[in-house]
Amino acid sequence: METKNRRCMITFPAEGYKKPLVMYAVKLGADKVILLNPEKSCMSLLSSFGINVEVKAIPKNKVSEVIISTLKIISGAKKDYDEVRMLLLPSNPEVVIGMYVACCIEKVKADTISDTENEYFNLPFFPFAEINEGEKFILTKIIETGKISKRNLLEKIKKEGSYDLLYSRKSNAIFGEEPVLKQLQRMLERLEKLELVSREREGRRFVWKPTSLSKFMFD
Amino acid sequence: METKNRRCMITFPAEGYKKPLVMYAVKLGADKVILLNPEKSCMSLLSSFGINVEVKAIPKNKVSEVIISTLKIISGAKKDYDEVRMLLLPSNPEVVIGMYVACCIEKVKADTISDTENEYFNLPFFPFAEINEGEKFILTKIIETGKISKRNLLEKIKKEGSYDLLYSRKSNAIFGEEPVLKQLQRMLERLEKLELVSREREGRRFVWKPTSLSKFMFD
Repeated sequence: METKNRRCMITFPAEGYKKPLVMYAVKLGADKVILLNPEKSCMSLLSSFGINVEVKAIPKNKVSEVIISTLKIISGAKKDYDEVRMLLLPSNPEVVIGMYVACCIEKVKADTISDTENEYFNLPFFPFAEINEGEKFILTKIIETGKISKRNLLEKIKKEGSYDLLYSRKSNAIFGEEPVLKQLQRMLERLEKLELVSREREGRRFVWKPTSLSKFMFD
Repeated sequence: METKNRRCMITFPAEGYKKPLVMYAVKLGADKVILLNPEKSCMSLLSSFGINVEVKAIPKNKVSEVIISTLKIISGAKKDYDEVRMLLLPSNPEVVIGMYVACCIEKVKADTISDTENEYFNLPFFPFAEINEGEKFILTKIIETGKISKRNLLEKIKKEGSYDLLYSRKSNAIFGEEPVLKQLQRMLERLEKLELVSREREGRRFVWKPTSLSKFMFD
């Protein structure tokens, strides 16, 4: 039985980024690099490190075409390699956006380079905001209702039997309402900090509303 | 009563794109340009055209922060201007992706420049694929069922009383099944061309399945 090749890196080479591109491939221990645009000098440098290089040029002018071509290349690579990684370099917006969306669809980790070109950063997958199950549940309720007070939110959570989402620790004890409301307040404040909900005074109480960001991302 | 200012352009200036940036502002007839990164030479050139320039620097390293800052700048600009436009130039992936997402949320038209720098292209809003109501309805049914034959799809459409979605022209005539099936076939083929559904032989018939692209975009 043949051993499966290990790592494949996919990138769209950008002018002036030859060195960081090759460094990334070497650090990753890539067995193969797929270049989405022919770039002769990259190819020879990568080859000199014993890395197998292939060029699979993609169309560059339409986002949807970039997505579809990149998706095909990713699924091909996934068949032959244990790990597929994307390096996203500064490039045309169509190319960057299309490649990024393809990574989100295929859950392929995408990295970028820092300005100093010595560090690599991982790009979070869309929808970016990392919120936990409980926060997501609360956010969904706020989006559904349009606006809601903390007390009414708690009632809704109780009714739907999702009371346990308000606890981070597992416990069989029966809780009073106070600690639960406090935990709910903490979650709302975290969502507010992430710009996913906003607070508004309505008479003597506050109501919580979704933001355009959360409506776009989670609705 | 004061007249509302007319056009505001927002952009993140990129090295080597000073000329197309200024040309875009002039062509647009922008009264104001908001630069998301200070770029002295752009500023003075724009000013020499009588365009009001403001710098509102945004963070560049995290997609979510780029989105949030850009959203704020867009809503501010929308209050003072009739039209807000974005010019997306080649830049760090975090900046490009974040600015693009902000445009999709706020429905602000975003343009890019062609390689020759003489033409501007409009970027479609996410989810990119432009499909009509009928096609969207059919796609949703295919995603819901996982896979379905054309005949079963037609049955489903009939049951839900959405038969009229299969006609482009309004008509009171009673149609036989043949022309309806033909229209359904046409819609399926269009969705297939957009890589939103795929066809698979199952025994003596074909079934239609969603693709990873359509599941990501419309599910």
